[in-house]
Amino acid sequence: MSLPVLKNYIDGAWVESKAREFGDVHNPVTGETLARVPLSPPDEAEAAAQAAREAFKTWRRTPPLKRARILLKLKELILAHQEEIAVTLTREHGKIKNEAHMELQRAIENIEVASGAPSMMMGHNLEDVSEGIDEYAIRQPVGVYASLNPFNFPAMIPFWSLPYAVACGDCQIVKASPLVPMTMTKIFELIHQAGFPKGVLNLVHGGAATAQALMASPAIQGISFVGSTPVGRIVYETSAKHGKRVQVQAGAKNWGVVMPDASLEKSAENIIASAYDCTGQRCLALAGILCVGDTYERIKPLLKEGIARRKIGDGLEPGVAMGPITSPEARARVEKYVAIGLKEGAKLLVDGRGVKAPEHRDGYWVGHYVFEDVTPEMTIAKEEIFGPVLCMIRVKSFDEALEIIHASPFGNAANIYTSSGATARRFKYEARCGNLGINIGVPAPMAMFHFAGTKQSFFGDLHAQGRDAFKFFTEETIVIERWFDR
Amino acid sequence: MSLPVLKNYIDGAWVESKAREFGDVHNPVTGETLARVPLSPPDEAEAAAQAAREAFKTWRRTPPLKRARILLKLKELILAHQEEIAVTLTREHGKIKNEAHMELQRAIENIEVASGAPSMMMGHNLEDVSEGIDEYAIRQPVGVYASLNPFNFPAMIPFWSLPYAVACGDCQIVKASPLVPMTMTKIFELIHQAGFPKGVLNLVHGGAATAQALMASPAIQGISFVGSTPVGRIVYETSAKHGKRVQVQAGAKNWGVVMPDASLEKSAENIIASAYDCTGQRCLALAGILCVGDTYERIKPLLKEGIARRKIGDGLEPGVAMGPITSPEARARVEKYVAIGLKEGAKLLVDGRGVKAPEHRDGYWVGHYVFEDVTPEMTIAKEEIFGPVLCMIRVKSFDEALEIIHASPFGNAANIYTSSGATARRFKYEARCGNLGINIGVPAPMAMFHFAGTKQSFFGDLHAQGRDAFKFFTEETIVIERWFDR
Amino acid sequence: MSLPVLKNYIDGAWVESKAREFGDVHNPVTGETLARVPLSPPDEAEAAAQAAREAFKTWRRTPPLKRARILLKLKELILAHQEEIAVTLTREHGKIKNEAHMELQRAIENIEVASGAPSMMMGHNLEDVSEGIDEYAIRQPVGVYASLNPFNFPAMIPFWSLPYAVACGDCQIVKASPLVPMTMTKIFELIHQAGFPKGVLNLVHGGAATAQALMASPAIQGISFVGSTPVGRIVYETSAKHGKRVQVQAGAKNWGVVMPDASLEKSAENIIASAYDCTGQRCLALAGILCVGDTYERIKPLLKEGIARRKIGDGLEPGVAMGPITSPEARARVEKYVAIGLKEGAKLLVDGRGVKAPEHRDGYWVGHYVFEDVTPEMTIAKEEIFGPVLCMIRVKSFDEALEIIHASPFGNAANIYTSSGATARRFKYEARCGNLGINIGVPAPMAMFHFAGTKQSFFGDLHAQGRDAFKFFTEETIVIERWFDR
Amino acid sequence: MSLPVLKNYIDGAWVESKAREFGDVHNPVTGETLARVPLSPPDEAEAAAQAAREAFKTWRRTPPLKRARILLKLKELILAHQEEIAVTLTREHGKIKNEAHMELQRAIENIEVASGAPSMMMGHNLEDVSEGIDEYAIRQPVGVYASLNPFNFPAMIPFWSLPYAVACGDCQIVKASPLVPMTMTKIFELIHQAGFPKGVLNLVHGGAATAQALMASPAIQGISFVGSTPVGRIVYETSAKHGKRVQVQAGAKNWGVVMPDASLEKSAENIIASAYDCTGQRCLALAGILCVGDTYERIKPLLKEGIARRKIGDGLEPGVAMGPITSPEARARVEKYVAIGLKEGAKLLVDGRGVKAPEHRDGYWVGHYVFEDVTPEMTIAKEEIFGPVLCMIRVKSFDEALEIIHASPFGNAANIYTSSGATARRFKYEARCGNLGINIGVPAPMAMFHFAGTKQSFFGDLHAQGRDAFKFFTEETIVIERWFDR
Repeated sequence: MSLPVLKNYIDGAWVESKAREFGDVHNPVTGETLARVPLSPPDEAEAAAQAAREAFKTWRRTPPLKRARILLKLKELILAHQEEIAVTLTREHGKIKNEAHMELQRAIENIEVASGAPSMMMGHNLEDVSEGIDEYAIRQPVGVYASLNPFNFPAMIPFWSLPYAVACGDCQIVKASPLVPMTMTKIFELIHQAGFPKGVLNLVHGGAATAQALMASPAIQGISFVGSTPVGRIVYETSAKHGKRVQVQAGAKNWGVVMPDASLEKSAENIIASAYDCTGQRCLALAGILCVGDTYERIKPLLKEGIARRKIGDGLEPGVAMGPITSPEARARVEKYVAIGLKEGAKLLVDGRGVKAPEHRDGYWVGHYVFEDVTPEMTIAKEEIFGPVLCMIRVKSFDEALEIIHASPFGNAANIYTSSGATARRFKYEARCGNLGINIGVPAPMAMFHFAGTKQSFFGDLHAQGRDAFKFFTEETIVIERWFDR
Repeated sequence: MSLPVLKNYIDGAWVESKAREFGDVHNPVTGETLARVPLSPPDEAEAAAQAAREAFKTWRRTPPLKRARILLKLKELILAHQEEIAVTLTREHGKIKNEAHMELQRAIENIEVASGAPSMMMGHNLEDVSEGIDEYAIRQPVGVYASLNPFNFPAMIPFWSLPYAVACGDCQIVKASPLVPMTMTKIFELIHQAGFPKGVLNLVHGGAATAQALMASPAIQGISFVGSTPVGRIVYETSAKHGKRVQVQAGAKNWGVVMPDASLEKSAENIIASAYDCTGQRCLALAGILCVGDTYERIKPLLKEGIARRKIGDGLEPGVAMGPITSPEARARVEKYVAIGLKEGAKLLVDGRGVKAPEHRDGYWVGHYVFEDVTPEMTIAKEEIFGPVLCMIRVKSFDEALEIIHASPFGNAANIYTSSGATARRFKYEARCGNLGINIGVPAPMAMFHFAGTKQSFFGDLHAQGRDAFKFFTEETIVIERWFDR
Repeated sequence: MSLPVLKNYIDGAWVESKAREFGDVHNPVTGETLARVPLSPPDEAEAAAQAAREAFKTWRRTPPLKRARILLKLKELILAHQEEIAVTLTREHGKIKNEAHMELQRAIENIEVASGAPSMMMGHNLEDVSEGIDEYAIRQPVGVYASLNPFNFPAMIPFWSLPYAVACGDCQIVKASPLVPMTMTKIFELIHQAGFPKGVLNLVHGGAATAQALMASPAIQGISFVGSTPVGRIVYETSAKHGKRVQVQAGAKNWGVVMPDASLEKSAENIIASAYDCTGQRCLALAGILCVGDTYERIKPLLKEGIARRKIGDGLEPGVAMGPITSPEARARVEKYVAIGLKEGAKLLVDGRGVKAPEHRDGYWVGHYVFEDVTPEMTIAKEEIFGPVLCMIRVKSFDEALEIIHASPFGNAANIYTSSGATARRFKYEARCGNLGINIGVPAPMAMFHFAGTKQSFFGDLHAQGRDAFKFFTEETIVIERWFDR
Repeated sequence: MSLPVLKNYIDGAWVESKAREFGDVHNPVTGETLARVPLSPPDEAEAAAQAAREAFKTWRRTPPLKRARILLKLKELILAHQEEIAVTLTREHGKIKNEAHMELQRAIENIEVASGAPSMMMGHNLEDVSEGIDEYAIRQPVGVYASLNPFNFPAMIPFWSLPYAVACGDCQIVKASPLVPMTMTKIFELIHQAGFPKGVLNLVHGGAATAQALMASPAIQGISFVGSTPVGRIVYETSAKHGKRVQVQAGAKNWGVVMPDASLEKSAENIIASAYDCTGQRCLALAGILCVGDTYERIKPLLKEGIARRKIGDGLEPGVAMGPITSPEARARVEKYVAIGLKEGAKLLVDGRGVKAPEHRDGYWVGHYVFEDVTPEMTIAKEEIFGPVLCMIRVKSFDEALEIIHASPFGNAANIYTSSGATARRFKYEARCGNLGINIGVPAPMAMFHFAGTKQSFFGDLHAQGRDAFKFFTEETIVIERWFDR
């Protein structure tokens, strides 16, 4: 049987790519190839950009309330096809189906918040800025945007920008990750039904060259990117070179501070979920914990026990806690860091090596890892691993923990486990990361709040989601008005 | 008598630069040299950045209300020394003293708006984002910023960012234009008195290398630039390359549409003020007018008469309407474009060639120019001249005027002269420039509104001034908070 | 066949009222009685209040996002039953079915805007109001509210408050008008299905005594009223006497100014729709026009012709432009004013006396009326008629028109027909009514904007709909937080 | 020597009242009469209202920025005369001079925040609410307001409304408390110098009849009242009866919860300051503490020792911690409650009876009181005493403390002393008072936040200060705009 070849969705129609290169989409549980994805050439990216530019002319004239309603229609369609999308997502990505559903939930929340555009995209105004002269900031859509998406949340991350763009009257081109392109392909089938005029939303599959074409297209005004820091740096510079608005969400290395006054049972449970859910492939996952005082020894058995209860396997099967990692490259990366960690002197409290789901021995399996005796200087304490690996560092005090957080080049998230109001306040005041959890292992901002890190975890100023998204996708034109007496 | 050599102001003290290169500051009325300005080497820029980084540690802990009060103290000091600063400004820049005062007025307005930081920099929050979990966006200062300033508004433009930065708890390094560095030097004397802790505000004189050092410094988190589009493009890309927040205000080519239903007398007066005040060196100045129907012929005599009444001379003397242009290079640039205009077939309705103020024959004089018979394809209709040159283009209709505005690579401002509500609305809806005037020749946003162009007139997303400035100078950290029962 | 007797909906169940008095619900097309409505005694109002108070305890703990989703579910249910509700509405009220649909549309828009509560009901906060002290305004639901509704928009007006109350976490008791109680009864059947916990929304039928009981109940914190000015005054004072939050939308007398530069054809069409749609029973309907200069004579034939094309009849039948008035009392009121108008010297340009739909001779028919030669002193120019009567007044100038608007005790709305930006600006600046139309006969604020008049058309400060509604239905609790070092 | 008789300030001039009744202003330290204050008759209140109405016509046309500058000028004048005002305030009120200065500081903060009106009073707008139709909420001043002020903060409380009213373009009449009218008289001397046009701000001395006249005047649109709950209820109802906007800040009974995990030393210090500063005459003062578990016994010695260090005397003398109470009536009220407390079975841990400052034996002295063994049913635990009396109640748990807070008819403030984040969160979520302190004895909102209680501590919806004040003092007029093609 021949493999399905994914199509691009341009100007309201599914079109076959003329790509000469294609990628394979795998099921990480089995290693089997599910589909082929075109690495679309620049002219196809440009065709989408031109279609979007054309669509913008009428889309921007569509009242915000009407635009919001098409979005809410899309929400209904996604809800109606939720299980089906979740299965697709699990099959191409590896995360368990429940995680796929939760991810879809986040996508839906972004649709709901974006549908508030009629209230949220208002401009502001003042009478008599000078006698008889009024001034207005009127808020207008900008034009065409593109989103460049990573593999770890195939359904959710495109929705950090997509619903806001269209609610604000802009058009968008989505480039899904070539590792997991089937989820957005499925969602675009629903987009097709929802009632968007042709060209408003477009899906172009592809890789780096496709992304470059989008960043360079004069028809496109802005870029939303989520991915690694090295690629993010290139995207930020390249988009700027082409004069575009740009927001870049990049890498992370998130620490959790465990204070002696914390509830250790609940904290351990929370840490495990943060570090290992989605097979550790979350930009907000805990990379390590900084255990103050005796919490280091006290939490170890709790972590071991908690992890021991987690079953690895096919995310479509019930009872499974962790699926495989998404790609062989990701697995190799984890294994590389495990080897480095051992070589640099860290010890494995929990050793995930050789772990496999017995029924699917060809899957991209990675077990749970807990490194102990980690020190801040070790490579595994500094670089982003992006897999189910947790590092434990002993610290003497809150201050020492804070120093480690400050020393990191990343600033995506940090968490603290404590029962003390004073400690929590100092943490909020001092941690300098974009997303801070107080007894929250994955401090993922809800859709009505914006989302971004600091330092090398984010480049730009306006964040994804929430109020910032309405700002990123609009131009606030100043009008100064005076009327001469006739 | 030896020339004064300007000093840098770093970490609360005036320090002599070790620069090996210096610039000359001229009085454009006489051509005489007023002072020498160091083109500070990179290490001096970095010293300022380090001082600011150090100062940030305590400045960010200073309550917003206290920070605002120091700003209001600075306002009082500027008011008390207003005449003195205006004279300095006129002497080094050439614009008339009244224009210098108006510019200072705008600086003061920005101080006033920025002093509203305790109200304007608030974060937002929601209870129960999930049961028992609260979420906050807490708004915190970011760190150190630098502003890179042009020569046309020596006092005003640094205040598009300076007061907001310090009100929000950030520290700043100001690089004044080496053509007109004396004005900010004088203002920094007042900053020194106002009560800012040392290191919070720093002044580093210099040129491109100094700017490059600031853009590259890891101690600096953001860049505000105002200048030409070619340089602006470099600043945008370079700042992005270094991972910084950046806002770039760049070049302009602003058109005014004259509708048959406009009050032509008042419009002509307004056009003249827009085109020629500040010797045309304003990013919001009218570069040309698009005369619909018979307004072309009807407005010509009004422009001629209005211009004939304007006296050229030393801006410190009463009765003078227009001073010299700021530099010989600027004059040469104007003369070059006049020659091109004539060569390409435009005619001079008003010819400024050879005009000089009789008492100061060595000044950098440029007369008033009105080109007629200009067509959209001519060089003078497309490129930024930045001097007292107005181009007249005949158009048949509002639609034709709009096409010319749309065709421009710039989008800083556009104006319309009309008495019709319908026409004004279409203009607001369609013009796609950042600042739109309805019967307002210079649609300069008041300080409580933000300020930026579109297209190649602005790179970035958050604008200068107003609400956007409070956002550019703060980080909105997300805190998600849950407390375990004990 | 016995008449249906409407039930109250209290604490999640339909309950028979023990009322001793009942009202009759008529079909104004035929005069037949459709149902009997209980005038519920005070203890039933109190039972609803108690149920709501109890429900509040858990409803306020339900995350805003979940509350919003139940609202959006209600929207889907209303959409699915739209035709059915519209037919009910037309049958009990008399307005044509298309008007009923448009009214439902407005109700839905309010649901959509209210579902933005997670974004719109956020509090605000500031770090370091004093060193180490943070301050928050956290936004919390208040408790229980009641809405007292008029007969003219049976479906729409309850939705000016209902969706905001529940989105914000409050509970509500709705008292529908006893003239038109079937529409909300039908909608409450959908509310019952939508998933609201019991007690969150309650429907209590009744009259003045029921309203008094709600205003006096200590279990209720706020009152939203829409109705006439005399009753509104009582409601405002009574609610205040009981210490409640209160917003009172009251009577109106809305003028339209017709300027010589207006497009008279389009204006006339717009005036006719405003004055006669919904049989003139709209608080934003034009009560009269102030014709400047020769527009008086010029517009007369346009009005006559336009009105001549409007067919009167049963609103369920196609081609009908105007249904009957809602009650015999309303008809008598119109007839009384027509008589007064004639007696005081006004003349009928269009005479609606004796008009009847031939097929339904027992209906409460009122024809179209246009009074000419009206002067500002006449009773018909001063008092609210609330029927399809338009008064024409000749004025010399815009200023004279403004004086008449200013002299009115009402300030609900005013409109101007003009093409001049200058005139429109003066009108906006000077008219001092709550809702101003520029070439808009019924300036009804969209749901994302608030809605209220001025002068005796509104009592209170926070308006219905939009941002104000989120404020009326929340308490912004101040928290000032400091942590002592341990 | 004859006593000075205070004048009213109406329409820009000091005018002698024709009052037939006068009050005496005492120095509570000595009992001597300082001045006589007219209880102005209704026609003088009306004269002020008329002057304000007239002044409004041009004041509302003055650009917000200009209005703000006059306010900032007033701030400078108050700063320059701060010591002088503080002495006057201490002399007529009794509080110590340092407290007078702190109060002035709060007045100044409100001026500063109000001067942000150009940013804070902006309206909002949306393009294309329907195709081609734009909608604006333009924010306009309302007209004339009156403030009715209590005796406890003669300088601060009028500034909860005054600066916002004038910054927003409204005019105001201030009625100072007849017990302490000299402070505002002095401040109005500065208002006279600051540059307000005549009639914009007016001062009318008087009592209840004067207040009634203001509430009844048709020239006045809104009332701000601060005082007791019984009077507040009358003001709320009366103002509503006259159709006015109204905000009523009323009585209080504020509890502090002391948790076992609190820092008791710091808490005790904070409790003492809250309960006794300003001689307990603060609406945010602690009326009592709810001691959980053993904190009851542990805090007693700390309170006794802390109070023992406080010297009573003339607030103008150094080293004095507490001045006299303001009036003999206030003293009698305290003494009455002390007697009731003893009679109902409470015991005095600290007994203030018979305490006098030795040098001023005729002063209105009241000592420090701490009642122990208080139960929630006692009169002293339920009614507002408004003097330096602290009640101690033993409670078993946080829940029991919360029940007592909930049972109070007042909801002005509540505080908790704890180090636990979880307890603080529950407190914020459950306490249902307007102003909550976490380890803050007097949770007085800073000027950029609004200020009001709940339950019988506040009637109305828009609070004093901050964002709410800008809303209370403006009308947000809706404009819906469409232009017909010509």
